[in-house]
Amino acid sequence: MAVITLLTDFGLADTYVGQMKGAILAIAPGARLVDLTHAVPPQDVTAGAFLLWSAVEAFAPRTVHLAVVDPGVGSTRRAIAIRSRRGDVFVGPDNGLLFPAVERLGGIDLAIELTEQSYWRPGPSTTFHGRDIFGPVAAHVANGVPLQSLGRPTADVHQLHLPQPRGLQGEVIHVDAFGNLITNLPAAGLPPHFQVLVNGRAVQAAQTYTAVEPGELLALVGSAGLLEISARDASAARLTGATRGAPVYVQPL
Amino acid sequence: MAVITLLTDFGLADTYVGQMKGAILAIAPGARLVDLTHAVPPQDVTAGAFLLWSAVEAFAPRTVHLAVVDPGVGSTRRAIAIRSRRGDVFVGPDNGLLFPAVERLGGIDLAIELTEQSYWRPGPSTTFHGRDIFGPVAAHVANGVPLQSLGRPTADVHQLHLPQPRGLQGEVIHVDAFGNLITNLPAAGLPPHFQVLVNGRAVQAAQTYTAVEPGELLALVGSAGLLEISARDASAARLTGATRGAPVYVQPL
Amino acid sequence: MAVITLLTDFGLADTYVGQMKGAILAIAPGARLVDLTHAVPPQDVTAGAFLLWSAVEAFAPRTVHLAVVDPGVGSTRRAIAIRSRRGDVFVGPDNGLLFPAVERLGGIDLAIELTEQSYWRPGPSTTFHGRDIFGPVAAHVANGVPLQSLGRPTADVHQLHLPQPRGLQGEVIHVDAFGNLITNLPAAGLPPHFQVLVNGRAVQAAQTYTAVEPGELLALVGSAGLLEISARDASAARLTGATRGAPVYVQPL
Repeated sequence: MAVITLLTDFGLADTYVGQMKGAILAIAPGARLVDLTHAVPPQDVTAGAFLLWSAVEAFAPRTVHLAVVDPGVGSTRRAIAIRSRRGDVFVGPDNGLLFPAVERLGGIDLAIELTEQSYWRPGPSTTFHGRDIFGPVAAHVANGVPLQSLGRPTADVHQLHLPQPRGLQGEVIHVDAFGNLITNLPAAGLPPHFQVLVNGRAVQAAQTYTAVEPGELLALVGSAGLLEISARDASAARLTGATRGAPVYVQPL
Repeated sequence: MAVITLLTDFGLADTYVGQMKGAILAIAPGARLVDLTHAVPPQDVTAGAFLLWSAVEAFAPRTVHLAVVDPGVGSTRRAIAIRSRRGDVFVGPDNGLLFPAVERLGGIDLAIELTEQSYWRPGPSTTFHGRDIFGPVAAHVANGVPLQSLGRPTADVHQLHLPQPRGLQGEVIHVDAFGNLITNLPAAGLPPHFQVLVNGRAVQAAQTYTAVEPGELLALVGSAGLLEISARDASAARLTGATRGAPVYVQPL
Repeated sequence: MAVITLLTDFGLADTYVGQMKGAILAIAPGARLVDLTHAVPPQDVTAGAFLLWSAVEAFAPRTVHLAVVDPGVGSTRRAIAIRSRRGDVFVGPDNGLLFPAVERLGGIDLAIELTEQSYWRPGPSTTFHGRDIFGPVAAHVANGVPLQSLGRPTADVHQLHLPQPRGLQGEVIHVDAFGNLITNLPAAGLPPHFQVLVNGRAVQAAQTYTAVEPGELLALVGSAGLLEISARDASAARLTGATRGAPVYVQPL
């Protein structure tokens, strides 16, 4: 019973996610469908790439990940399926969306440009490849169709790199719904004792939220293995005014 | 393993959808549950009818569709199950919500007024028939209970017709989360070359989003087979100010 | 095929819920996952406890309920699994979140403090026990692991009691997405004829929404068996200005 995860910028107010699931289940009735999120900001490929990156490691190897943030739908941008070295399969537009997640799971083992239309929904629209191409292809992969059957191998995958820190200078790469500021600074690079500067605020490092008083800021290693600036029972985004892209400086103490 | 889709105006902030799913799974533990949307504007039967219409064609025949937008719950409005000519089954209030979707799948093959209380949750509430009547009935249908067992056949189903265009004059029938303006003008009726007038703006026709510059409006046939007014990487609703019901004129060129 | 329900304050904009599901399915690939809600106000344990209470009765006995509203994550607050007398299992932080729902299903049959780390994700984070402890434990329970294997029995469960009415004086304990004001006044305690006072407004009792005109307030017994103040096709919260905690008085007529 294969698991197919879904990540899109479709939102939940329309039936687009439901239509995509219908197209999948019509082909792979036994597939397990798991929503990662459908609240990627519209057309924001980089935000989607981070969110996909954040999620995939929690799933068992051989999971199929279907992701659609696709401002180029209907144009000449290619459709791809990528198998990671860990054995997971990613399906979506070749615009960089899938790349960081594939890298996290060991890098590209095989990439296929999706050209074999017999695995698509007949008469695909020019605006909704999630339902008409990516969903059906993911379903066929879940059914055991070999990647090689779906098109031709390609060595030319669109690369997208999440912003990288320079030593102890990083940036906010995601603001979550709690208002936590997730930075791109990995735990491994942090000094034993430090404070963090963000938007002119000095924030102390701590191990857990309860190390500070309610409403106070702290910096800690979050569940993605990245430095996060948080506030106990409050929103660090609101307290600091920082948004995505804000510079973050780690100062050893 | 039957698929049951769910469409409601319950939102996701409460546990109403979860309660409905609990009631279904208590009866049909093997059913696959797929959310279409739960963000139908409260009590807006027409909006719900469009959204249900938009989704059902992507699912395999014999799917069970459970839909609840039900301002008349607890009153004398009837509860119904309808089998389409394609073989899908729809369960919900008899207020027109189901009608356009059934029509899309071939029209009514059999309609049953739900009167057989042994297929309901014992002691149903007067405010939540989704959990207490429609959900249990959908579960029994998924289990293979014949429609005829659920009540008495009726020829008198409440009809609701989505707004129809007059030739090349239509209207916006849905604004999606991207800000696309979905009209009621079907692709088949469009001239070979045309522009579109909406809210005093002339919008050029195109095949794909990338045919125009970012931020520009275009008119194209969307994934529902209907004319849509969109904007590349932007919201056509915001750019035009148009809302549901806004007149749309197609001008042949 | 065990059902695991999920209730959190994670929201749906991030991939936290998805990560938790990935961790569960990696251990229990056959488990059925049902979202109750992920829109509990951040860190609001009491609101989460009410929402969990509201949902569990609709599910079959032996369901596994996983709930995470966890301001004390990473601190010394304990992690627990509780079996209700009805046979359901609850997994989450020992902060009261689970308590009212367990009481609703017959009270505590067995409570276990989760200390056996072999049932956790290796190297659990200090910020995301939903993915790293509670999810894996719920998955093992769904797989049939006896509760006693997960840690040591405890008689010292954190108790949280939803606000109780004093006779005919109660309060609003939840405002739902329709704007219904759910009170803590149970149907059984209501006089045969009454009106309700809330925020200086007198509201008449009725059996169904359609007993009043559109836009008018009414008080009726809702689907949780509690008195609710509603408005036909409108929001009682907006019409009355009442919020959670607002006093509600029942006046016999």
